[in-house]
Amino acid sequence: MSKFLSPEAARLAPYTPGEQPRDQQYIKLNTNESPFPPSPRVLEAVSREEVERLYLYSDPTCAGLNAAIARRYGLTSENVITGNGSDEILAFAFRAFCGEGKGAAFADITYGFYEAQAALFGLEARRVPLREDFSLQVEDYRDFPGTVVIANPNAPTGMAVPVSDIRWLLEENPERVVIVDEAYVDFGAESCVPLLAEHGNLLVTQTMSKSRSLAGGRIGFALGSRELIADLNRVKYSFNPYNVNRLSLLAGAAAMEDENYFRSCCRAIRENRAWTVEALEKRGFAVLPSSANFIFTKSGRLPGGELYRRLKEQGILVRWFGKDRIRDYVRITIGSREQMEALAETVDRLLAGA
Amino acid sequence: MSKFLSPEAARLAPYTPGEQPRDQQYIKLNTNESPFPPSPRVLEAVSREEVERLYLYSDPTCAGLNAAIARRYGLTSENVITGNGSDEILAFAFRAFCGEGKGAAFADITYGFYEAQAALFGLEARRVPLREDFSLQVEDYRDFPGTVVIANPNAPTGMAVPVSDIRWLLEENPERVVIVDEAYVDFGAESCVPLLAEHGNLLVTQTMSKSRSLAGGRIGFALGSRELIADLNRVKYSFNPYNVNRLSLLAGAAAMEDENYFRSCCRAIRENRAWTVEALEKRGFAVLPSSANFIFTKSGRLPGGELYRRLKEQGILVRWFGKDRIRDYVRITIGSREQMEALAETVDRLLAGA
Repeated sequence: MSKFLSPEAARLAPYTPGEQPRDQQYIKLNTNESPFPPSPRVLEAVSREEVERLYLYSDPTCAGLNAAIARRYGLTSENVITGNGSDEILAFAFRAFCGEGKGAAFADITYGFYEAQAALFGLEARRVPLREDFSLQVEDYRDFPGTVVIANPNAPTGMAVPVSDIRWLLEENPERVVIVDEAYVDFGAESCVPLLAEHGNLLVTQTMSKSRSLAGGRIGFALGSRELIADLNRVKYSFNPYNVNRLSLLAGAAAMEDENYFRSCCRAIRENRAWTVEALEKRGFAVLPSSANFIFTKSGRLPGGELYRRLKEQGILVRWFGKDRIRDYVRITIGSREQMEALAETVDRLLAGA
Repeated sequence: MSKFLSPEAARLAPYTPGEQPRDQQYIKLNTNESPFPPSPRVLEAVSREEVERLYLYSDPTCAGLNAAIARRYGLTSENVITGNGSDEILAFAFRAFCGEGKGAAFADITYGFYEAQAALFGLEARRVPLREDFSLQVEDYRDFPGTVVIANPNAPTGMAVPVSDIRWLLEENPERVVIVDEAYVDFGAESCVPLLAEHGNLLVTQTMSKSRSLAGGRIGFALGSRELIADLNRVKYSFNPYNVNRLSLLAGAAAMEDENYFRSCCRAIRENRAWTVEALEKRGFAVLPSSANFIFTKSGRLPGGELYRRLKEQGILVRWFGKDRIRDYVRITIGSREQMEALAETVDRLLAGA
């Protein structure tokens, strides 16, 4: 920290991303990436000719990509904004809809980035505790006057909120924006996208980092009314008009158009998740009901931090959050069947020695 | 604009980027792109194998790219931060070093984005008029208590500030950050990078969009003391930890390592600039002295807006800013020799008809 840091920046709460080791080969089950490569259409789209054209700016309106996303969801391009990952989109939303006296509410246990971004804009952040069983009850947000952010399914628990609950929340206070972060929705939760037609206060964010196998391309998007999207563009053009690079625009559109590949990847993850839950429960683990491409689980015998460290020693990276309420748990990304079998075998070894 | 827009967002001043037409072939001299493709090493680096690995997140620390940049400038990686274009880096700097009672000062005629970003963080912005001849005099910034931003060379004028002047400004008030935006420095201005060793209050920003032919890759960076860079990382990890995508990390490092290609591109631009200045002066144009890959020029016979429109009708895009003081001028990017010859011929036709 320098002596030049502003008090506003000193109050920030920077996010700590999961380990991205460069020096060693791990079975990487810690940052919820897909175990599958991107669609073959992405490989075609990012051609040598397109790399040669990198001397030209990308399209700031992201027209081609937004059109592909709109087609997929039965919307128009004016209902779509694309960002440099959904993190950027979320920041735009915090700036667009929150401010002095209009804070943001989100769960006490959820994606850590909401907290970081609320601090970035100096917002009042209300952390609403999940219930004892880690369920999110929408009535707990009924009286909050600012913007509500709900990750559905939630991270790191993996648990989903019924769309009927979110509809109730949207109708309860139509003067307030509800952001539903559907980063993991494609792995089994119900999407709120069909609610967009009736609810002008709903913003749905999604990402291509998980179900579209493009974490390294940094592509996220939001779907909402034309007016909400215009508000987000207002922030984008105050922050970074050329926010998505040329190759990611192409990769994203190609991935969005390959529905069959997308479905087969999601199906494989759901099957591997079912296999993994069964394997871990057999070994005495408790696993929260997951609709995501990860599970949140605790061993009856090893504390969370200990399990994380021992797995890492054995070459398997999972994520442990040393935080109240979830100290006993680790979050494990669902990878390929081979990776999950390796996990189960490693757990056997660890428990034999525990 | 929706009814949900916060008053803070309503006060934003979004930037209007130059036209990026998708529907027609223009000679594009309006957004200061390089006319040359990226280095052949970039084509090698963005391989099919790397596209296949897009399912993995990019390295949030940008270690490989930062190391390549540091080597090029004789610094260490701790003196470097990379962003999704230098626009993102500038936003990080505004958030890190400015705030309540600590605004930003910049020229009245300069890169329009400083204004947009100052508004993004609700900062007091002091616009310091350039002198009558469009020169920037550093003594005009002596008493400003906040952060000073100087584009060197300036846009859209192309005019450079001597490094000795900037050194004076750094020494005049060591309690204040001076940001020198060197987006265009490689085309003939003197860089402030050598001042970094002695001046902890200097932050230099650069981009790979111009001299490295990677506008579509969105790669900018800042160079500064380890402490200033740590401050910028504090903001980055509050906004978007994975801010540079995998392929741009590779492309940027490859471009940075090809010094010969870089030099030959910059040399060609300087030669084409000299040719263009001479050609336009012969045709009665006044051209400001440019150290950039563009020139700022006025015809004695056609108003700026008229020149812009007529060139566009003839298939040549340049940039016109309909703003006080510079209404008579257009900004013309220096492209390939063929492009500049086409410009000269088109000007001949327009003047014959004027």
